[in-house]
Amino acid sequence: MAGAALSDDEIARRIEASFGKQAFMTTLGARLSHVAVGEVEIELPIMPHVTQQHGFVHAGAVASIADSACGYAALTLMPAGAGVLTAEFKINLLAPAAGERLLAKGRVVKAGRTLTLAMAEVFAIKDGVSKLCAMMTATCMTMAGRDGVSD
Amino acid sequence: MAGAALSDDEIARRIEASFGKQAFMTTLGARLSHVAVGEVEIELPIMPHVTQQHGFVHAGAVASIADSACGYAALTLMPAGAGVLTAEFKINLLAPAAGERLLAKGRVVKAGRTLTLAMAEVFAIKDGVSKLCAMMTATCMTMAGRDGVSD
Amino acid sequence: MAGAALSDDEIARRIEASFGKQAFMTTLGARLSHVAVGEVEIELPIMPHVTQQHGFVHAGAVASIADSACGYAALTLMPAGAGVLTAEFKINLLAPAAGERLLAKGRVVKAGRTLTLAMAEVFAIKDGVSKLCAMMTATCMTMAGRDGVSD
Amino acid sequence: MAGAALSDDEIARRIEASFGKQAFMTTLGARLSHVAVGEVEIELPIMPHVTQQHGFVHAGAVASIADSACGYAALTLMPAGAGVLTAEFKINLLAPAAGERLLAKGRVVKAGRTLTLAMAEVFAIKDGVSKLCAMMTATCMTMAGRDGVSD
Repeated sequence: MAGAALSDDEIARRIEASFGKQAFMTTLGARLSHVAVGEVEIELPIMPHVTQQHGFVHAGAVASIADSACGYAALTLMPAGAGVLTAEFKINLLAPAAGERLLAKGRVVKAGRTLTLAMAEVFAIKDGVSKLCAMMTATCMTMAGRDGVSD
Repeated sequence: MAGAALSDDEIARRIEASFGKQAFMTTLGARLSHVAVGEVEIELPIMPHVTQQHGFVHAGAVASIADSACGYAALTLMPAGAGVLTAEFKINLLAPAAGERLLAKGRVVKAGRTLTLAMAEVFAIKDGVSKLCAMMTATCMTMAGRDGVSD
Repeated sequence: MAGAALSDDEIARRIEASFGKQAFMTTLGARLSHVAVGEVEIELPIMPHVTQQHGFVHAGAVASIADSACGYAALTLMPAGAGVLTAEFKINLLAPAAGERLLAKGRVVKAGRTLTLAMAEVFAIKDGVSKLCAMMTATCMTMAGRDGVSD
Repeated sequence: MAGAALSDDEIARRIEASFGKQAFMTTLGARLSHVAVGEVEIELPIMPHVTQQHGFVHAGAVASIADSACGYAALTLMPAGAGVLTAEFKINLLAPAAGERLLAKGRVVKAGRTLTLAMAEVFAIKDGVSKLCAMMTATCMTMAGRDGVSD
């Protein structure tokens, strides 16, 4: 809050740096595909290692990229040095997550000092057609002055 | 509903068979540790490949085992031939998911014909001490007569 | 499903008739202010009888108009004779619900045969300025062939 | 945290005093029926003015008593002078809320410095038989040093 605001480039680098440390995103095969102030998109190629018993992407994997998209959208608006944690999220699964890839589009609904509400829509893309397959709302918490929780 | 009810052994085999097809559980390194009527537990050793940027287990990985624990707890009460899908879940993250392993304990709150409410508590276990780190409620749907969605 | 689809006028009359039977909306002092296919708005003048201990509108009253806005938005897309029930909802409270009136804007995100996801934004209006104070996602269920549950 | 902890009697008086200021509880006809450390129960006689179109208690009215039960359960553990606000809640509606009265049993799942997770079960009581009709999880926020937000 005090101090200089971050430039768009600094914001992008901040998100990329923190995303790069999320080993779980590498495990999934997810990549950061867009960062802007209040907006983050994450893409996940659909491969067998993220599926559940019917061959769709596991709801937990869908939720994982949606959660990271929400959390990083929130982080774009947090003061330098602060870290982000998810306090809670809810996801509605609307259609089977199947096709070539998933795209989670996260954006901030309302940024507060302590709590930020973000939401994400997840689209399943098949043969160039994009279909909404999940929607999340997430409460993200700004962590300041905690050892090891800085992004 | 009609027809013979499943025995406890048949229920355990049913859950094990379906869990075994969830490639994503293998990716996480999760294993089924308990099955009873209306109850399923899943264990996840904490390893670097499931972590987020601060070294804790990613909220999405926590949610993944909680979702499977809820869904399979629900499936223990579903008629043979039916499949289970998650319609929605909400998870509250209560403490950093850190330590040696996570244990997700899922149980059915109310089983209905179409919708079943299940809940899961996730414990982080460190040096033999178990700490509640997340709580989920999940709405699971009984799918009957859908090709490819049978468990 | 079979049979003629409802006209816009029939849809508006259907929602008005069902809303008129919600005694609780009268208790709150809420009124239906807009109905279109997939969209319903409900307005609530802020009066002392709906407040909590700090003088803001009680979160439950905010949720009540948001829930009705979601449910009726869903009902606009349901076959004649069917009734609507809420299976679950989640609401995030973003700012104190204070001012002259609240406006809940509900809309359908995805309509399915059994389950429909709707969402609502609730705005607090003061001196002509509108501020987002809550956001809800709700899973609505189509009830067909149940005595007494037809809208 | 600093300063003297409240006695059980002081806690009960604190909750009763704040509940007494929730005009909306009076509008509903709800009353506080039990207060203990980390636990609050609220009772609602079922009367026509809280119903929806099928004659059941409106989901919003069910949520209202569950939210107050969660918030006040959380408040029993908050430092003197602090106020409580609900940041978010999710409710699953499990059975029609019908009968003579509803009983919402709220309890704290995890109390934190800023955020407390509480949950509530709501029972519908008819002819002496109690049936679970809803379950809520709620994130409650400790407000300290805000004018007008002290309980």
